[in-house]
Amino acid sequence: MHYPEPISKLIDSFMKLPGIGPKTAQRLAFYVLNMKEDDVVDFSRSLMKVKRELQFCSTCGHITDVDPCYICSDKQRDRSVICVVQDTKDVIAMEKMREYRGLYHVLHGAISPMDGIGPEDINVPSLIERLKDEEVKELILATNPNIEGESTAMYISRLVKPVGIKTTRLAHGLPVGGDLEYADEVTLSKAIEYRTEL
Amino acid sequence: MHYPEPISKLIDSFMKLPGIGPKTAQRLAFYVLNMKEDDVVDFSRSLMKVKRELQFCSTCGHITDVDPCYICSDKQRDRSVICVVQDTKDVIAMEKMREYRGLYHVLHGAISPMDGIGPEDINVPSLIERLKDEEVKELILATNPNIEGESTAMYISRLVKPVGIKTTRLAHGLPVGGDLEYADEVTLSKAIEYRTEL
Repeated sequence: MHYPEPISKLIDSFMKLPGIGPKTAQRLAFYVLNMKEDDVVDFSRSLMKVKRELQFCSTCGHITDVDPCYICSDKQRDRSVICVVQDTKDVIAMEKMREYRGLYHVLHGAISPMDGIGPEDINVPSLIERLKDEEVKELILATNPNIEGESTAMYISRLVKPVGIKTTRLAHGLPVGGDLEYADEVTLSKAIEYRTEL
Repeated sequence: MHYPEPISKLIDSFMKLPGIGPKTAQRLAFYVLNMKEDDVVDFSRSLMKVKRELQFCSTCGHITDVDPCYICSDKQRDRSVICVVQDTKDVIAMEKMREYRGLYHVLHGAISPMDGIGPEDINVPSLIERLKDEEVKELILATNPNIEGESTAMYISRLVKPVGIKTTRLAHGLPVGGDLEYADEVTLSKAIEYRTEL
């Protein structure tokens, strides 16, 4: 034990965070020592608040401090479109774009038979329940473009199509600002397949 | 504002730490959301404790939760040697070695006329005061091997030598496990100069 106890406990706490090893944890803990008291108090309170005051929106599953969340309770949003995403961080990425005005549904995962995750283990049942009540015309299936995401999108699409709800998927293609040279073959072949006329 | 308020506040707090940008701060904040409640409570408390319970030892200037610190109050240590370091982290590095059994004195900086830091601005006066009272025979000047550290060592050495206290400096040379090829010229020339007979 080389550190006074309070600091070694703080180092342990920092080390529980992802990507922070012993050296960084030590650096951060000593940095805290020299921070303004107000900032440290704020930091300490925010940690507790995030853990105690946040919950998942009972409608869409997005993380929120009020239920229903600010998106679900916003009367100005288009209630005929629901964008289905895997994670609460995806909602934030979509919102940063400032173009989408519909609602969301957070699955908190994707179907993955390999890991024993079926449709019942993620937020699919609550989505189906929601479609019964609301006037939804389109589901944008914005799950990740990998095997789990694609099969989740496929599963939901098949479930929902008979009810007459349109399902769409985000476009594949070259990232804007990207370099043709560095694009992988699959992306490139998608970009050719879905080429648009000028 | 895309995040619920508690989480955006936590992201702001994480961003105040060194080397943590917006992306990492977001990742850490969302990680906290999924951490065990006990761990978050511990984290929050440690932050406050580090800020409120830690102080500098009135004798050596090392960071501590009791005054005098556990090193100064350890009767088993050799009170005739004081190792003078720039920073409290240097004490920890020395202690990790488990070979040094003397006392320490933390300067909290180095003399740097360029930045307007003179001997009075760092813990030099308290060191001189300490030498009057205690039975010190040797000062190991373990300041950093750069211009500021060297001149601080030189300054203290000149101040103390007339009183008959031996002053020493840590050895320069190749780092153990290092590669000759990658050693800089100055280090290499020191390694040649202080070569030892086998």
